[in-house]
Amino acid sequence: MSAPSPAITSTLFAAKKASTLSFAQLGEKLGRDEVAVAALFYGQARASAEDVTALSQALGVSEETIRAELCDTFPNRGHLTEMPPREPLIYRLYEIVQNYGMAYKAVMNEKFGDGIMSAIAFSTKVEKEVDEQGNAWAIITLRGKWLPFSRF
Amino acid sequence: MSAPSPAITSTLFAAKKASTLSFAQLGEKLGRDEVAVAALFYGQARASAEDVTALSQALGVSEETIRAELCDTFPNRGHLTEMPPREPLIYRLYEIVQNYGMAYKAVMNEKFGDGIMSAIAFSTKVEKEVDEQGNAWAIITLRGKWLPFSRF
Amino acid sequence: MSAPSPAITSTLFAAKKASTLSFAQLGEKLGRDEVAVAALFYGQARASAEDVTALSQALGVSEETIRAELCDTFPNRGHLTEMPPREPLIYRLYEIVQNYGMAYKAVMNEKFGDGIMSAIAFSTKVEKEVDEQGNAWAIITLRGKWLPFSRF
Amino acid sequence: MSAPSPAITSTLFAAKKASTLSFAQLGEKLGRDEVAVAALFYGQARASAEDVTALSQALGVSEETIRAELCDTFPNRGHLTEMPPREPLIYRLYEIVQNYGMAYKAVMNEKFGDGIMSAIAFSTKVEKEVDEQGNAWAIITLRGKWLPFSRF
Amino acid sequence: MSAPSPAITSTLFAAKKASTLSFAQLGEKLGRDEVAVAALFYGQARASAEDVTALSQALGVSEETIRAELCDTFPNRGHLTEMPPREPLIYRLYEIVQNYGMAYKAVMNEKFGDGIMSAIAFSTKVEKEVDEQGNAWAIITLRGKWLPFSRF
Amino acid sequence: MSAPSPAITSTLFAAKKASTLSFAQLGEKLGRDEVAVAALFYGQARASAEDVTALSQALGVSEETIRAELCDTFPNRGHLTEMPPREPLIYRLYEIVQNYGMAYKAVMNEKFGDGIMSAIAFSTKVEKEVDEQGNAWAIITLRGKWLPFSRF
Amino acid sequence: MSAPSPAITSTLFAAKKASTLSFAQLGEKLGRDEVAVAALFYGQARASAEDVTALSQALGVSEETIRAELCDTFPNRGHLTEMPPREPLIYRLYEIVQNYGMAYKAVMNEKFGDGIMSAIAFSTKVEKEVDEQGNAWAIITLRGKWLPFSRF
Amino acid sequence: MSAPSPAITSTLFAAKKASTLSFAQLGEKLGRDEVAVAALFYGQARASAEDVTALSQALGVSEETIRAELCDTFPNRGHLTEMPPREPLIYRLYEIVQNYGMAYKAVMNEKFGDGIMSAIAFSTKVEKEVDEQGNAWAIITLRGKWLPFSRF
Amino acid sequence: MSAPSPAITSTLFAAKKASTLSFAQLGEKLGRDEVAVAALFYGQARASAEDVTALSQALGVSEETIRAELCDTFPNRGHLTEMPPREPLIYRLYEIVQNYGMAYKAVMNEKFGDGIMSAIAFSTKVEKEVDEQGNAWAIITLRGKWLPFSRF
Amino acid sequence: MSAPSPAITSTLFAAKKASTLSFAQLGEKLGRDEVAVAALFYGQARASAEDVTALSQALGVSEETIRAELCDTFPNRGHLTEMPPREPLIYRLYEIVQNYGMAYKAVMNEKFGDGIMSAIAFSTKVEKEVDEQGNAWAIITLRGKWLPFSRF
Repeated sequence: MSAPSPAITSTLFAAKKASTLSFAQLGEKLGRDEVAVAALFYGQARASAEDVTALSQALGVSEETIRAELCDTFPNRGHLTEMPPREPLIYRLYEIVQNYGMAYKAVMNEKFGDGIMSAIAFSTKVEKEVDEQGNAWAIITLRGKWLPFSRF
Repeated sequence: MSAPSPAITSTLFAAKKASTLSFAQLGEKLGRDEVAVAALFYGQARASAEDVTALSQALGVSEETIRAELCDTFPNRGHLTEMPPREPLIYRLYEIVQNYGMAYKAVMNEKFGDGIMSAIAFSTKVEKEVDEQGNAWAIITLRGKWLPFSRF
Repeated sequence: MSAPSPAITSTLFAAKKASTLSFAQLGEKLGRDEVAVAALFYGQARASAEDVTALSQALGVSEETIRAELCDTFPNRGHLTEMPPREPLIYRLYEIVQNYGMAYKAVMNEKFGDGIMSAIAFSTKVEKEVDEQGNAWAIITLRGKWLPFSRF
Repeated sequence: MSAPSPAITSTLFAAKKASTLSFAQLGEKLGRDEVAVAALFYGQARASAEDVTALSQALGVSEETIRAELCDTFPNRGHLTEMPPREPLIYRLYEIVQNYGMAYKAVMNEKFGDGIMSAIAFSTKVEKEVDEQGNAWAIITLRGKWLPFSRF
Repeated sequence: MSAPSPAITSTLFAAKKASTLSFAQLGEKLGRDEVAVAALFYGQARASAEDVTALSQALGVSEETIRAELCDTFPNRGHLTEMPPREPLIYRLYEIVQNYGMAYKAVMNEKFGDGIMSAIAFSTKVEKEVDEQGNAWAIITLRGKWLPFSRF
Repeated sequence: MSAPSPAITSTLFAAKKASTLSFAQLGEKLGRDEVAVAALFYGQARASAEDVTALSQALGVSEETIRAELCDTFPNRGHLTEMPPREPLIYRLYEIVQNYGMAYKAVMNEKFGDGIMSAIAFSTKVEKEVDEQGNAWAIITLRGKWLPFSRF
Repeated sequence: MSAPSPAITSTLFAAKKASTLSFAQLGEKLGRDEVAVAALFYGQARASAEDVTALSQALGVSEETIRAELCDTFPNRGHLTEMPPREPLIYRLYEIVQNYGMAYKAVMNEKFGDGIMSAIAFSTKVEKEVDEQGNAWAIITLRGKWLPFSRF
Repeated sequence: MSAPSPAITSTLFAAKKASTLSFAQLGEKLGRDEVAVAALFYGQARASAEDVTALSQALGVSEETIRAELCDTFPNRGHLTEMPPREPLIYRLYEIVQNYGMAYKAVMNEKFGDGIMSAIAFSTKVEKEVDEQGNAWAIITLRGKWLPFSRF
Repeated sequence: MSAPSPAITSTLFAAKKASTLSFAQLGEKLGRDEVAVAALFYGQARASAEDVTALSQALGVSEETIRAELCDTFPNRGHLTEMPPREPLIYRLYEIVQNYGMAYKAVMNEKFGDGIMSAIAFSTKVEKEVDEQGNAWAIITLRGKWLPFSRF
Repeated sequence: MSAPSPAITSTLFAAKKASTLSFAQLGEKLGRDEVAVAALFYGQARASAEDVTALSQALGVSEETIRAELCDTFPNRGHLTEMPPREPLIYRLYEIVQNYGMAYKAVMNEKFGDGIMSAIAFSTKVEKEVDEQGNAWAIITLRGKWLPFSRF
């Protein structure tokens, strides 16, 4: 019921490096998005029984080890990312919320009414695009169910 | 050089309400995304000379008023959204960064190398999807240029 | 799109006092719970068109005034309660979350699996009970939809 | 007199997993609510002599171990839940206090006068409801003695 | 339902100065302790109907003014004292809690069991003592009902 | 010169439990108040040479151990109690300062002039009272020398 | 009983500028140190009846104005200096405490025993020295009564 | 380049205790002030080659040990004193900055112009005075070079 | 002695806009760097008598107005920039300190010994460079006197 | 994917000390600036394959050790420098941002338009200058690509 130990994170990253598999390749083996796989590595998502088997086979880590930390427990989410983030990559995401938060709210309230975009009934992915000048662009998609405030 | 006064925000929202135009319709008139238009309303983006004219015509607010606040000055960004956000809609976006920040970093470093996704050379949009059961889903897309760390 | 001015809160409380109606009586007129009515007074919930009419009739405040502040805008929730709360009554609620948060999570994960109780698809009420010794007890009920984490 | 070591929490969770007993089943054996049992596991409540015996029998952990940590000491409550909570499930409870705190105060002052709902002379429980569409709902009940401010 | 305006505090202090009455003398007229009277002046306690009459007569402030701010509303307590306090006199009280908090808990748990001293069913007073060398000593007494944690 | 190690606290509490002596009984042996004895256990007060001998005899802990931690060093006070306290018992004391701080200052300035109540030239005690209904009440007395601000 | 309004600070500084008197010259007229006079200007010290007369004569501000703000009330000290200070001059003083705090404690405990240097029974002054190279040096002297911790 | 380990602090304090030398006596041997010596013990100042030799001879700690921690590295200053300080002795120094910061600035700007008193080109000392009544007074002197702001 | 009112900032920016002068052109007229001129506009630097005359002539603002706010007072520096900065441009500077602070310290201690780079005996400038691909680069130069820690 | 362990930092500093090489000399061997080399030591920059070889040869640390910590992982930047910094040298850099942040923004917006100076497409260096009086001056140069805000 507590957070997974940092040991599982190290174990999985070491096994992944030895396997030379990317998160995207692991994602295919699990039938999950690569972001979800990385979240699993950090103990920020929960593994299903099938995930345990697939991860074990792909990475050569015993099912018992994986199950005990990522499947038998319920993740203690959110404590890994320091807020405000000092890490430059994560800070940019934070900054987007800080700069455009009110604008998102205005547009989403207009489009959907009074409610929120769920972060639970939710998925996300990261894509790479290269433009004509050869510049790389990162595209993050956030997709969440719209939940209207209940009237009571 | 300072932040726009809250007055311009109220003026623009009142004029928009009177005009019955949506952010999306305003976006078409300005050739900008609706999120950027909402950001303009909050003084979190800068208006070009053409934006001033188009906004003035669409909303019936004088060009002088708009130009003085949104075009002659450079926005003082980021101060409108309290962090951590108390507003439930904005909090969910913050929570996504908190929960998936490390996973985004792991996947993006693998996909792009050592660098960040820019929040400046950046655009974003909000879309609405309705699934077969009639549930609405919100989709937010973040697109930023990949900036590798300079070697020095 | 911004928070209602404190003026509407004062106006509504003054009118309520003049009317001698309780929140529970107002709740009956609106078909809403008394907590929801109090939240309306503080601009922390959104009024429907029917709410505007009913409130106006019950309290003798013009529909225009109420509509402009509580219906045309989308509430900017959560900013009224200082956290951690210094107010003793509100602090006790905060303390319950602080003391029993982990226990709630352990029990709810066991009962429902990996997910959260929604605070959006949500209702709440306050009841009073008097025991045999004449002591009063307050009972707060929180009822929220269970949202399982999406697999992705 | 100090907080229980994290070791007792791990020991109890491991023993509970081996026993396959739920918190509700343990609660029946102790004559306590399942939330109180989970709070005991985290050292956030104090065990009576009978609780020690019942827990020991149910979980196969020695009475000495349980007594030393949960009965001989007085719990150092509240330090386990980080505030504001990052854990999504616990954050929703926090958000309810943040959004409805003032409304609860207004309604409770009206119903009970000047005072607070005790968080000490207090009990709580979690229930599960399934509606006609098959959706699960969580119901949390908070019941505290009403304490009027003393006149002095 | 909101906090009293600072205006009532200024009004009462000005009237008290004009009257040359001390808090202790006012306390006698109200049948309350002088600390409770000072708390009333700051809107941190609630006046009864009799308090309103007595204060009005003693200070020459209209009953309406006093009633509206100190009797019709329920105090929003605790927000007047900045924490940690910068004011040297108040800081010393804070420091006593900081230095002796754990010792108070150890002694009180031993003397009373598992529970708390109520700050609601509570009274306090300040006394002055002069020792043989002519030094003044301040004595603050805190008296609160002992509340044992409920078993549930 | 540094803070005592937590080890001495554990050692003393274990020895006290074995001895079945209460803080009050220990206080009689040392000629000190029971709160001061508990503060000694937490390393928040300094032991005299006589205290070391008396504690050693009462608890069966060697004089050397006690002297090295509680007598040779000067206590690093105040770091044991987290502020704001999460512990419910200690929080109530903090709340009293928060709610009545300004009232104490007003009354004490009136009674004593411009100055502070010392927290150094200071003593404190805890007493238990049982009223006619059998309810227990805790009484904490704080007694500090009054220090007027120097004129310079 | 509340803090002096910023108005008195402005009034006094304007009158001082018109008078061309330095703080040192004002100090001579009041029989107080120049730092105490500056503290008076900011409402961080209390004026005696004689101070009021002397200030009034020196600066041409009416006795009534000065008395009402600096003599009838008890200062609400400490709230003027933001901590940590952003002002570079004040920050250096803060940094001295931060860098040498532990060293001061070690030396003072050795020299004086277990206690503190009072900041209430206290005076301070600022002097200027010019060395042979023509460099100016500032010398701040802090002089406080030593208060040993009471044994209780 | 990193902070000295806490081990050197313990080693030096233990050796000093064994030697029965005071900071003042050590200061004479090093030709430094006793506060500087105490700062060296805490790794908050840098030892010269001569300091290493003198400390080694006085305390019987090997030169290698002292040199590695206090001479080869550059101190990571300021992290030892928690701010705001909880330690009562250090808090009084902090409170002096808080209460008199603005007054110091006003007097020093008047005496020296626009600039700061350096905390780097800086020395400090602690003295003890006993008045006619036998009361001890502590005198702390801060002496820093005056640095005018550069015009650029 | 207090901070300049925001009014002078607005006045100067409005006059600068009317004059169409850049900061660089104003800098030439004052014989100061453009960054220093912008700092003057924000009241974060002090104007000399000559600066007052030159600014007055260049911008058509009366000497009296400028002198009263920027020359008669000593700036209250540092309070204009919120830390951590939310403004994206200022945040990047903050991030550079955060990411490279330890590296700067290591290199500067090696190059200069134990000391600091002064931020008072200090100047700074901003330059623009355009590379062969037409990309603009900003170059900020910080130049401060090296101050070795005094030995005492 | 996690931060390098502190062990690598110690290893590299020890090896550098043994080698008697300066950061500048190491920089020549790696073809990188000395600040970048120091950042590598702290795990705040990423080593290329060539950097690993060059560092290994220069310092006599195995390539495997360096590669595992500085090349196979992506740095978790920014967490090493506490903000606000307590370290005096790093604080001065922070203070420069605090004092001149708004001025930099005003000048840079005027010179470059709406955008930021990148801290990613960025290099920095430290130089030493000795003036005619023999005073040392430190010069830090920050050079970042200018990124205009995208229009969207």
